[in-house]
Amino acid sequence: MILERIKSEGLAHNSYFIGSHNQAAVIDPRRDCQVYIDLAQKYEMRIQYIFETHRNEDYAVGSMELKSMTGAEIYHGPGLNWNYGITLTDGQTFRIGAVEVKAIHTPGHTDESMSYILTDLLTGKAPVILFSGDALFVGDTGRTDLYGPEDADRLAANLYDSLFLKIMPLGDGVILCPAHGAGSVCGGHIADRDESTIGIERAQNQALQLKDKSEFIKHKTGEKHERPYYFRQMEKYNLEGPPILGHLPVPQPMTVSEFRKEIENGAVVVDTREPAAFGGTHIKDAYSIWLNGLPIFAGWVLGYDKPILLVLEDEEHLETAVSYLIRIGFDNIKGYLKGGTEAWYNAGLPMEDLSLLSVYKLKEMMDRGDNFMILDTREDNEWQNGHVEGAYHLYVGQLEKRLSEVPRDKPIAVMCKTGHRASMAASILLRAGYKNIFNVLGSIVAWTASGFPVVKD
Amino acid sequence: MILERIKSEGLAHNSYFIGSHNQAAVIDPRRDCQVYIDLAQKYEMRIQYIFETHRNEDYAVGSMELKSMTGAEIYHGPGLNWNYGITLTDGQTFRIGAVEVKAIHTPGHTDESMSYILTDLLTGKAPVILFSGDALFVGDTGRTDLYGPEDADRLAANLYDSLFLKIMPLGDGVILCPAHGAGSVCGGHIADRDESTIGIERAQNQALQLKDKSEFIKHKTGEKHERPYYFRQMEKYNLEGPPILGHLPVPQPMTVSEFRKEIENGAVVVDTREPAAFGGTHIKDAYSIWLNGLPIFAGWVLGYDKPILLVLEDEEHLETAVSYLIRIGFDNIKGYLKGGTEAWYNAGLPMEDLSLLSVYKLKEMMDRGDNFMILDTREDNEWQNGHVEGAYHLYVGQLEKRLSEVPRDKPIAVMCKTGHRASMAASILLRAGYKNIFNVLGSIVAWTASGFPVVKD
Amino acid sequence: MILERIKSEGLAHNSYFIGSHNQAAVIDPRRDCQVYIDLAQKYEMRIQYIFETHRNEDYAVGSMELKSMTGAEIYHGPGLNWNYGITLTDGQTFRIGAVEVKAIHTPGHTDESMSYILTDLLTGKAPVILFSGDALFVGDTGRTDLYGPEDADRLAANLYDSLFLKIMPLGDGVILCPAHGAGSVCGGHIADRDESTIGIERAQNQALQLKDKSEFIKHKTGEKHERPYYFRQMEKYNLEGPPILGHLPVPQPMTVSEFRKEIENGAVVVDTREPAAFGGTHIKDAYSIWLNGLPIFAGWVLGYDKPILLVLEDEEHLETAVSYLIRIGFDNIKGYLKGGTEAWYNAGLPMEDLSLLSVYKLKEMMDRGDNFMILDTREDNEWQNGHVEGAYHLYVGQLEKRLSEVPRDKPIAVMCKTGHRASMAASILLRAGYKNIFNVLGSIVAWTASGFPVVKD
Amino acid sequence: MILERIKSEGLAHNSYFIGSHNQAAVIDPRRDCQVYIDLAQKYEMRIQYIFETHRNEDYAVGSMELKSMTGAEIYHGPGLNWNYGITLTDGQTFRIGAVEVKAIHTPGHTDESMSYILTDLLTGKAPVILFSGDALFVGDTGRTDLYGPEDADRLAANLYDSLFLKIMPLGDGVILCPAHGAGSVCGGHIADRDESTIGIERAQNQALQLKDKSEFIKHKTGEKHERPYYFRQMEKYNLEGPPILGHLPVPQPMTVSEFRKEIENGAVVVDTREPAAFGGTHIKDAYSIWLNGLPIFAGWVLGYDKPILLVLEDEEHLETAVSYLIRIGFDNIKGYLKGGTEAWYNAGLPMEDLSLLSVYKLKEMMDRGDNFMILDTREDNEWQNGHVEGAYHLYVGQLEKRLSEVPRDKPIAVMCKTGHRASMAASILLRAGYKNIFNVLGSIVAWTASGFPVVKD
Repeated sequence: MILERIKSEGLAHNSYFIGSHNQAAVIDPRRDCQVYIDLAQKYEMRIQYIFETHRNEDYAVGSMELKSMTGAEIYHGPGLNWNYGITLTDGQTFRIGAVEVKAIHTPGHTDESMSYILTDLLTGKAPVILFSGDALFVGDTGRTDLYGPEDADRLAANLYDSLFLKIMPLGDGVILCPAHGAGSVCGGHIADRDESTIGIERAQNQALQLKDKSEFIKHKTGEKHERPYYFRQMEKYNLEGPPILGHLPVPQPMTVSEFRKEIENGAVVVDTREPAAFGGTHIKDAYSIWLNGLPIFAGWVLGYDKPILLVLEDEEHLETAVSYLIRIGFDNIKGYLKGGTEAWYNAGLPMEDLSLLSVYKLKEMMDRGDNFMILDTREDNEWQNGHVEGAYHLYVGQLEKRLSEVPRDKPIAVMCKTGHRASMAASILLRAGYKNIFNVLGSIVAWTASGFPVVKD
Repeated sequence: MILERIKSEGLAHNSYFIGSHNQAAVIDPRRDCQVYIDLAQKYEMRIQYIFETHRNEDYAVGSMELKSMTGAEIYHGPGLNWNYGITLTDGQTFRIGAVEVKAIHTPGHTDESMSYILTDLLTGKAPVILFSGDALFVGDTGRTDLYGPEDADRLAANLYDSLFLKIMPLGDGVILCPAHGAGSVCGGHIADRDESTIGIERAQNQALQLKDKSEFIKHKTGEKHERPYYFRQMEKYNLEGPPILGHLPVPQPMTVSEFRKEIENGAVVVDTREPAAFGGTHIKDAYSIWLNGLPIFAGWVLGYDKPILLVLEDEEHLETAVSYLIRIGFDNIKGYLKGGTEAWYNAGLPMEDLSLLSVYKLKEMMDRGDNFMILDTREDNEWQNGHVEGAYHLYVGQLEKRLSEVPRDKPIAVMCKTGHRASMAASILLRAGYKNIFNVLGSIVAWTASGFPVVKD
Repeated sequence: MILERIKSEGLAHNSYFIGSHNQAAVIDPRRDCQVYIDLAQKYEMRIQYIFETHRNEDYAVGSMELKSMTGAEIYHGPGLNWNYGITLTDGQTFRIGAVEVKAIHTPGHTDESMSYILTDLLTGKAPVILFSGDALFVGDTGRTDLYGPEDADRLAANLYDSLFLKIMPLGDGVILCPAHGAGSVCGGHIADRDESTIGIERAQNQALQLKDKSEFIKHKTGEKHERPYYFRQMEKYNLEGPPILGHLPVPQPMTVSEFRKEIENGAVVVDTREPAAFGGTHIKDAYSIWLNGLPIFAGWVLGYDKPILLVLEDEEHLETAVSYLIRIGFDNIKGYLKGGTEAWYNAGLPMEDLSLLSVYKLKEMMDRGDNFMILDTREDNEWQNGHVEGAYHLYVGQLEKRLSEVPRDKPIAVMCKTGHRASMAASILLRAGYKNIFNVLGSIVAWTASGFPVVKD
Repeated sequence: MILERIKSEGLAHNSYFIGSHNQAAVIDPRRDCQVYIDLAQKYEMRIQYIFETHRNEDYAVGSMELKSMTGAEIYHGPGLNWNYGITLTDGQTFRIGAVEVKAIHTPGHTDESMSYILTDLLTGKAPVILFSGDALFVGDTGRTDLYGPEDADRLAANLYDSLFLKIMPLGDGVILCPAHGAGSVCGGHIADRDESTIGIERAQNQALQLKDKSEFIKHKTGEKHERPYYFRQMEKYNLEGPPILGHLPVPQPMTVSEFRKEIENGAVVVDTREPAAFGGTHIKDAYSIWLNGLPIFAGWVLGYDKPILLVLEDEEHLETAVSYLIRIGFDNIKGYLKGGTEAWYNAGLPMEDLSLLSVYKLKEMMDRGDNFMILDTREDNEWQNGHVEGAYHLYVGQLEKRLSEVPRDKPIAVMCKTGHRASMAASILLRAGYKNIFNVLGSIVAWTASGFPVVKD
């Protein structure tokens, strides 16, 4: 029997390849799905089944793409008006070589959420692995806020039942294979470890330690999660099936003049370099979204209607950037600037810079009583755990729609956890015509490490 | 936290790389240990600890090699007069980033056997993973016959205590990471699946279902395992530390005349092609040991004193063949025949062939009452599960020392499970000057698939 | 400036990638054209031009495939009714970054044949490289027999003019980049070296040493070349544009029963193992075409109407086999036998073998006066250079259509140069129901190396 | 016959692998020589000869390293008191399979310089390839200033004789394989193209167009080349044989505190990021040497006595940085900062920044008449071709020894061609305690592209 976990960084998404004898299945494939084909070839197997745990909202699922390459059949849960695939019934079973997969309905994160139990018939009838989707993570449980506040109680109750009536009874020894790892927007406290079992979660997962169902519902409805704007598009895609790519887009290298022409024609520039480099110099009106931030943060600010132009730290990053973008449906990547920012300024074209501020200088400015705003762009949870006194809180993802809250008549020192989201927020302000914008490098992490005080509201 | 399982095929050996933050450890490294260096580089970690589960007998451990490349310290169990490394005490703990590793003494397979319990301190105090060495496998337990019959009861009793007093009490949810997978000579019933937990083993592992300690001892002492001749060399190596390689040997391509000269000087030819190709034609006096059979079967017939010459099906197999050989200490690989057997016969040099027999022809010969011997070269267990009526049983590994049992005056049809070990056995007979040797392709598997009858003693 | 030679083994075909600054061109792309995309990415260039030297007859050109992936424009020579691309005029020039490419009409091999002169404008006006297509090779000139005997004189005269009036005058210092290397069916004496210049060819190429044009014509029309049956399909494809693949076919691993069913449904089995292995054992009715023989010899016997099934020596060979087949238009590769011949005979299915004969045994049979036929399956040229006395000559490619020349009532010992084509010929005879077929391993090479005599007609 | 050019970027150094049948030779191997081993394995050859064209001064030759891995013998030219290898005589020949290599003495660049003529005996006696070392490049000839002014005339005269009496007479058709490409410090006008022949050079190489020997000598002695400080160490190494590495050093990932401790213990920090990122923020006292600048510029400022610490833009750059450093003998690379500058400032440690200046701001400052110095750090040749009016010229390599020429009481705007060497120069000034240092991004290239005026002295 073969089990392979395929991790998609940035999204912190896990898909799984399982196989036995000549046959294989993939659970929650991503859209750049050559990785599954390669595994099938390596193990000399034929991918016959694609199992979705739910209509994912945080990425475009690769089921249709993988089906187009392999002919495999797609299965997903009941209650949605799917445009593709086959709807499962609770308890339906499949044979994959010597392995049995049983689909169980585990609503809560969403209504149609399924989990899959794998049994190795060569060794017995005991369940061996649970593919739990977004029901149960290592150290956390799936968010239940996606349908809005009016459904939150119902979803949390459903999740409780799924966990305590269907999942936990499978037994402590069952290995847990969830759809997300640490860093996902689908859970705030997922552990930075991939390996777990129901037994370990029973012992350590905080959500499973609560007294009763009503405590659990209270806990879940009290959670706060951001909901990136691109989720809506993903939900549409994953209900209808996203466009088939055939192969990954290959953005062309562009000369400075070609690149400039595309900007004039309305393309949006995304600069994937690190904050220090973006601060050093960048092309006017570029969004600063560091490479590993693309899979989530591009979805807050980019639209699906405009072509994307890339500025890279290293041409080697191209393929990664492209994968990250197409995973959330941004397929229209026009090209990248050959030679990077250096080519731009070597051509005598104007550059823009974003002042970088150390926490020491920030402290000086505060102590001096300078007139400026500290803008903290982290999530609610982070803000509530402690922030610089006097800072103003506005999450980076919402900044572009809430610019009116940010004054134009004084300097703005932008912060986040370490300066990445702050660089993005700063780039949004610069695009909006703000002057005197500073990115606080290291932000709250450096601030705290330097021994400066934080306050809580 | 990072966990990587490194599988060494043929030996069915598992080593493990664990890491957290800046630090890493390797459990039971193999000798070609660049793989661990590569993992350390990938995760930007520093290998600081090497943990051995026991003095391995089936391969040369890579601890000294890895230490020479990284400076990591080596640890192993008590009771042996080790020439290198540091001896552990039961319960000793180590910190690796945010992870704790606790060494526990689990004798049984050998006296100094250790297991290692990993706890992820970021999530709690519950044990997460058990590196169980040769104590507990997926579906099996470690062999207890290595010290000979006089110690078998004692070792089996020790293993029982290690399992039931130390390992099982850790809890069902603990993930199991043993030192071997299916196909190992260290256990006869290891499952063809890598993933398990103590809970799954408690439910399904036959050795854990027995009524009591005395049943367990009876069960273990009733097991039959082959003990390849090279084990003695491995035990010596792993006590003293095997020679440092520095880098993998790079056997030179040899012309036919260079190859011939080395044969004349006493080098031994190992033909790693499949049985059908070996049967088609081969160089006189070559051993037939198919590529994936090298890690175990080379150790039955090759000596540590003579240089080895390789005949390959494909030059791409060179690196694999070399890895397989050095893992069991055969470092003196002189070269390989450039162009393979074809170069040899193209040069007008004589070839030898080994007649291949289908099970249909074998049946005809039997039905006709031809005067010939069927030689079954499988292990005792396999033989006892059913064989062709009238066959003579002699395990391939012992054939060279028990040639007197094989008559020279009539044809010999050699069998095994599918024809690989039979090809090796046939090559041993040919080397010994036998004529009229046949390899039964497909052997007992094809025989059974064809519907022909087997008998049991 | 970048120049890369891409060699397609088996076909001994060279394509070229040239680039400067942001732009690139490909000359005579092959159909599996990811290699050019990868080069473009490596050098950060955009492929804008595809230059064909002529309508190739020995492989399906990848121009349409590459255009579909890059949008590059295709150019080729005048005088054909092309279904795609742009027809060049003699002397037309192109700029690729700082490089100039000039197309010159060099008929002879075919009427529309073009060569391309590259000049590096950064260093001057001197021609630097000549892409000579099939006009001039290292050590040989292109064949002029493709239009049949009636046009042979005219084509040879044209080639003479192209060489002496257009190519040689470019100067000794020009580097030669031809469309083929040693082993191509497009020239019989191509040197086993890729590097040359017009100066080196002027000094050493035999065809350029001849006294005058009439000697040259006589020389060319006296050459004998085989013309594989698949050439007709390639000519059609390359005029009309072969089907777009999108990506390489990924043949599925098949179980024995799946494989068997496809055979029953009419699929053709191609066994790509070496002759010794094929001789050892093989599936009934399989063609024996060794891996590196696929690109040429598959085109003599396989049809474009039946699905192909592969038997491989090693699953690693799959991708190579697929590339080789699609390069000559065999896209319908249904699958391969998982586990190879061993899986087949392990399932108790019947195997066939082909007796292998050493040259020593062959000599014995001849000396004894046995009644059998020696069938020499090499090309005319090879046969005329010396063969075994009494052998019958019939080229392997024509065997299937000329079976009536081969008697069914006596043993046939098949020969070629080393036994590869002989194995293929033997498999054709076995498919046709012949019995008592032998493949002489090493064939004429081993025969000669053993000191046995050859005769010439 | 096989010919492979191995390019070492940064140094713009070419080494060559040639092979025929079972044998191979390497010309001027570099120190990280696994690449030659890999080629030998790919082509199934045995490296038997190592030919040096001269005692290289710009990199540590890999002959001893390669010999230690293969047993190949080393050959070099006469007149030096070599500590290793065999001294050649003019005209000595070697057989490598079917190829002949003839060593000819071609002094000029240095006294012991050799060239090697390759003839392919399978096709005739004509010379095919010339490995010309530093005698003749594509578009240039080797520098003749290395022995100092007193020997310059003599060396130039020798080079003239080598070129016109030994090399050019070989014939236009001979392919040229020199030891360097564009960007080397061993020639100032080497073309950005690898392919050439003696014929092309005869037509286009400026040094070969001069009227007579005395013109040639005048031309050569008029050339100006920088001579990096590390040359002396290379000359010593290459006479005595550099230390054997065994394998590439694997610098360890370091935490911020480990890194800091090494700095305190005297290690030198080299920041290999691009100028914009270095300008954004960097660790105090780091040298700014961009990745591809390492092989030359590290040799001007780093000593052979202090350990080196690396700051990387991307951990993927580690292996490249290490190769670049060991090629010029800097083997003592202690480690790299895990997480890069971000880890540093996140830990609350102080950072330093270097102000970046656009050419527009520079122009403004000049037009305003600000009191500051423009420091041009390019080579003499570049400076003489045009510079900003009023700038002060001081080559970056000499800056550290000529700091007294740079005033400490006013701002310094540092320039070079595009800002890389300027960043290095600026980092030297910052290390020396200067304040108010600016790097002009894009420097003279951007300045010119913006239409601003340059002057010549």
